[in-house]
Amino acid sequence: MSFDAVEVIVAKRDGHRLSDEQIDWVIDAYTRGAVAEEQMSALTMAILLNGMDRAEIARWTAAMIASGERMSFAHLSRPTADKHSTGGVGDKITLPLAPLVAVFDVAVPQLSGRGLGHTGGTLDKLESIPGWRAALTNDEMMRQLEDVGAVICQAGSGLAPADRKLYALRDVTGTVEAIPLIASSIMSKKIAEGTGSLVLDVKVGSGAFMKDVDRATELARTMVELGTDAGVSTVALLTDMDVPLGLTAGNALEVRESVEVLAGGGPADVVELTVALAREMLVAAGRPDADPAAALADGRAMDAWRRMIAAQGGDPDAELPVARESEQVLAEADGVLTTLDAYAVGIAAWRLGAGRARREDPVQAGAGVEIHARPGDTVRAGQPLLTLHTDTPERFGRAREALVGGLVVGPAGSAVPTRPLVIDRIG
Amino acid sequence: MSFDAVEVIVAKRDGHRLSDEQIDWVIDAYTRGAVAEEQMSALTMAILLNGMDRAEIARWTAAMIASGERMSFAHLSRPTADKHSTGGVGDKITLPLAPLVAVFDVAVPQLSGRGLGHTGGTLDKLESIPGWRAALTNDEMMRQLEDVGAVICQAGSGLAPADRKLYALRDVTGTVEAIPLIASSIMSKKIAEGTGSLVLDVKVGSGAFMKDVDRATELARTMVELGTDAGVSTVALLTDMDVPLGLTAGNALEVRESVEVLAGGGPADVVELTVALAREMLVAAGRPDADPAAALADGRAMDAWRRMIAAQGGDPDAELPVARESEQVLAEADGVLTTLDAYAVGIAAWRLGAGRARREDPVQAGAGVEIHARPGDTVRAGQPLLTLHTDTPERFGRAREALVGGLVVGPAGSAVPTRPLVIDRIG
Repeated sequence: MSFDAVEVIVAKRDGHRLSDEQIDWVIDAYTRGAVAEEQMSALTMAILLNGMDRAEIARWTAAMIASGERMSFAHLSRPTADKHSTGGVGDKITLPLAPLVAVFDVAVPQLSGRGLGHTGGTLDKLESIPGWRAALTNDEMMRQLEDVGAVICQAGSGLAPADRKLYALRDVTGTVEAIPLIASSIMSKKIAEGTGSLVLDVKVGSGAFMKDVDRATELARTMVELGTDAGVSTVALLTDMDVPLGLTAGNALEVRESVEVLAGGGPADVVELTVALAREMLVAAGRPDADPAAALADGRAMDAWRRMIAAQGGDPDAELPVARESEQVLAEADGVLTTLDAYAVGIAAWRLGAGRARREDPVQAGAGVEIHARPGDTVRAGQPLLTLHTDTPERFGRAREALVGGLVVGPAGSAVPTRPLVIDRIG
Repeated sequence: MSFDAVEVIVAKRDGHRLSDEQIDWVIDAYTRGAVAEEQMSALTMAILLNGMDRAEIARWTAAMIASGERMSFAHLSRPTADKHSTGGVGDKITLPLAPLVAVFDVAVPQLSGRGLGHTGGTLDKLESIPGWRAALTNDEMMRQLEDVGAVICQAGSGLAPADRKLYALRDVTGTVEAIPLIASSIMSKKIAEGTGSLVLDVKVGSGAFMKDVDRATELARTMVELGTDAGVSTVALLTDMDVPLGLTAGNALEVRESVEVLAGGGPADVVELTVALAREMLVAAGRPDADPAAALADGRAMDAWRRMIAAQGGDPDAELPVARESEQVLAEADGVLTTLDAYAVGIAAWRLGAGRARREDPVQAGAGVEIHARPGDTVRAGQPLLTLHTDTPERFGRAREALVGGLVVGPAGSAVPTRPLVIDRIG
């Protein structure tokens, strides 16, 4: 069936729902170039402002899946479990999580991306390991899933090409923040990938895409519905992103912290979230009795990590890169650290060289922020709160500017509001 | 000052007002190509759905004016009065009106366009007069205004080029129907043109752009405010467009009817609206005592018409083209004509060849619809209600399809709701 693009835009503009046929047509025609960029941007703005109902979002997602190829893990000898995070500062959880879950004979395919903006990218982090490569063929990926159980690699370009085109458009037209479009973007790729189960880590707070719990809950619910309707066992955890995860933000810095967690140590919040997400994935994959905390403590997760890195050419024993220059940020007074803002730390790490402004920019493996105090900690004047790392010291100034107001020491005895790391579970 | 396009889009998307600097920047950058089409279409959709306040619309209009050249009629020996219609079916009023007002030593510059869609274009109508040409140089136009008083010609491309680019974009992105954008589009060209006073004929009804009185009133008020704020004495009449104006829709057909009006005859509604608009223009131009009805009756308006046509190479005595084929639409029963829908008649005339589907299409001079009965008239089965004219008889079928439901004969004694031709005056 064929439609006129203006007719579809006007329908959504005037608050009507789009028919299945209109959605199928507009996604296909846009992918083929028969609907122009300026028409799709008007439509996405109308969707952002007027919304889509559950059935529309499901159809929109299905149409994006239909724009490309579909993968399947059905031939593997083990069940699959996938995890997706909406992105945060210091969020290195995929690194310890994938090998940890693989310990229990579950296949964990983590088709990942690179960082853009203030949140880091999983592939950028792993590329700081000498020799490690992100690009695998489909066959290599399947073999590694069968042999090792865990693979973290670059997503192929064949999955949901409509989404790639649409995402680039939304990025320049102020239409990123539409929940139906965010949800369908994430879920179209995950469903096309063919996983049996999916655990979503929906971040909420200053360093996340969703700043408040209501919108994060709406996004989580929308994605869980989409997954469930498509036959993927899906659950979402809402987790805090007002404060960075762990004590590092930056590529090699985060790999080092992940290895600490795999060695049975590491920051408590990183361990807590890794174990919580692992439990969800293991239950969804039919391993309700598995004990992921034990597998971190006894070295089985570390063994799986070493096999996973080595399978992709990486040397798990190699020294990780260290930035050429570092500077400390000191407490200016005695008191209590009341604020350690995730967004401020993310921007600082980005400006130090851990992230990129444009897709084609390189990142610095050693750049980033080390955190020495967490909110609620008592601090003394002159004590280091952060260490900033970069290869290009002219960046220190703008990184420090990003921290103004984001790193606050209050008077002794100041109350510091906290919320649990795992705020809610939707499934 | 420079902005990021996404920042401007997001401000309007989130319901904020745009600053003067943002508006100036975005219109200028769009005209230069530094803001992309897909960014402007997202912004116009956000404007359509979230609106602009009076000061924003005024600034938007000023920025569009600043994108091009400005004209001035200040050196003329007479005052100027301009008229603009938002477009309707059978709306030939400009043809008798311009020479009629010129009778009273007022300069009437009518910079006009061509038809697109179901409403006709003034230039297309006049081009059915053998020899008449629409394109004049600025000098030719000024000389004719000084010598004859009235000129109807093609608008130059130098006025508000931002508007031309933006209008083409809105046309394909479902963002035509935004009152701030309609008002600024019309008024930017009228203000740039430099007229001293302006009378707006805002059509309301099925054959008009605005279907209901509330929206038409809002558009009229917005345009009157824009004109007034820019120092142009501006008034608007809201006039009915549920029924076609007069008894013809089509190029040469409408010229013929206009000449009847100039000869002191013609349909009552065309005469009434011509005189009402003339009075408004004459008052605005400082001629409150002028009697336009007398000038129609005594031949002075016809003399001005003949001079105006001849000045642009036209032969006022030439035979007008007649379509090669015609067919009548007959009443199917005795009764009362209850509906003669302007939109249906406009579409029928368009399909017969009076209008164009694309800007580059030609029009047929003789094509169109003649109307033999008006709503409220008693009719008998077999009596002709309309005559359809075209050079290409294969078009009759689709023209008749357009009239289904738009031409209704009810039982004898049926009440036919009417409203006055001039519904309201805003000024």
